[in-house]
Amino acid sequence: MIQRFFDHSPEPRTIGIVGGLGPYAGYDLVRKIFRWTRASVDQDHLPLMLHSFPGWIPERPAFLLGQTKENPGEDIGGIMEQLARSGATVIGMPCNTAHSPRILDVALERLYATGLDVRFVSIIESAVQHVCQLCPNGGRIGLMGTVATLQTRLYQDALEKAGLEPVILGDEDCALVQRAISDPTFGVKAFSDPVSPAARQILLDAARRLVEEKKVSTILLGCTEIPVAVTETSLWDTPVVDATSVLARELIRASCPERLKAPFEIQG
Amino acid sequence: MIQRFFDHSPEPRTIGIVGGLGPYAGYDLVRKIFRWTRASVDQDHLPLMLHSFPGWIPERPAFLLGQTKENPGEDIGGIMEQLARSGATVIGMPCNTAHSPRILDVALERLYATGLDVRFVSIIESAVQHVCQLCPNGGRIGLMGTVATLQTRLYQDALEKAGLEPVILGDEDCALVQRAISDPTFGVKAFSDPVSPAARQILLDAARRLVEEKKVSTILLGCTEIPVAVTETSLWDTPVVDATSVLARELIRASCPERLKAPFEIQG
Repeated sequence: MIQRFFDHSPEPRTIGIVGGLGPYAGYDLVRKIFRWTRASVDQDHLPLMLHSFPGWIPERPAFLLGQTKENPGEDIGGIMEQLARSGATVIGMPCNTAHSPRILDVALERLYATGLDVRFVSIIESAVQHVCQLCPNGGRIGLMGTVATLQTRLYQDALEKAGLEPVILGDEDCALVQRAISDPTFGVKAFSDPVSPAARQILLDAARRLVEEKKVSTILLGCTEIPVAVTETSLWDTPVVDATSVLARELIRASCPERLKAPFEIQG
Repeated sequence: MIQRFFDHSPEPRTIGIVGGLGPYAGYDLVRKIFRWTRASVDQDHLPLMLHSFPGWIPERPAFLLGQTKENPGEDIGGIMEQLARSGATVIGMPCNTAHSPRILDVALERLYATGLDVRFVSIIESAVQHVCQLCPNGGRIGLMGTVATLQTRLYQDALEKAGLEPVILGDEDCALVQRAISDPTFGVKAFSDPVSPAARQILLDAARRLVEEKKVSTILLGCTEIPVAVTETSLWDTPVVDATSVLARELIRASCPERLKAPFEIQG
């Protein structure tokens, strides 16, 4: 099959998305890629594949917190390989927790063993780079994510290396945020469309505490389930950085930078 | 890679979605599949692939209306083949116009030539079957779609065969609906997230005329761009059937019927 574009811009690279971690985070990333693509007819949109195989991939936090020895990186790598073999040359994974090196390194080893021309775009690196641009003079960055993401210091180490100060809430509040994400009776993973008011309220309360009690200058949503529930770009006069949205823009940039909208082109 | 589910329900079949026709219709179908799947943890969701290659596929209406000889069925069949070779065993295509036999037959010939075990689920057959269940004693079904879908009588013939009476608006109103779908300055294909107020207003006006002037008993949204703009399940006390949502349910039923939610389980 020959890729055939109807205008004369360079041929875009095909974006592959490792979905299913969770499913709604995959769909949220697809939506944000479409939203940030400069397009007035179907053919302007970028080539993209979403492979959502949630049943293949064991729980990431359980592995990172030592509750199981089954490393989900092996199966995630299998999905990356499948995407690359189907033609993806740029790959993104909308799950912060799965970017922990103990998982991601195993997955990328399998991807790169294919020898195919493919680039992985990290949500952590993309988000931290974006926060650096927002806060050129440093700042206190309020971090929200799963307990496993926070305990493995994925964002904290990267933010500190970039000269920023990561700030997290106390254990009790972090456990509440975790429940808002994954509790099977009201969490975002179980109730995404619409999100339950209880889950959204917990997430907003956590954001408010980061601003009011911890005096952060920016809030970083470092779990891809959170922006499914919290879509505000600013809360209590504090900018909110949605890592999924940053990843969407980086994937467009890696596929075909000419098609990336400027912020003023985004409506609503 | 071994598909491994953590409960004891039968192994679901993998759903493949031909996206890009347009991109937002593909994403809307994914959303509706997730929404209608009985799931409380990630692993409960069904295996699914969305392949969105809008740049590969020439305009469908232009071919059907005789403005070009380039049959998009060839490239659509290529995407179906790619999905099947990646493991999809149930395939759906959220684009009514592309279900015209002159396009679909060419695509399915290529798919079935692979010899793989794969089933195509038609949006037209699914929607007409659903309308029949809604209207067991017959009825006037107000049809909204692209000019090409209406001119090729895709739905009219199927509805008449099922004992229902298809009703469409006059040429001028149909041309307006077409513009609400595809006009590059305000149509749903160019402005999907959010949809422009102008496009939504045209679509609502057309629905109102079908109810008030044509006295239809049901409105059938027979273009997958329309439910991106019109999400109501009822308008002017008349049920609205969204063909994308019906296709989502049929794909779940074909993949793993136990996971299909009953309507009372759908919130919001």
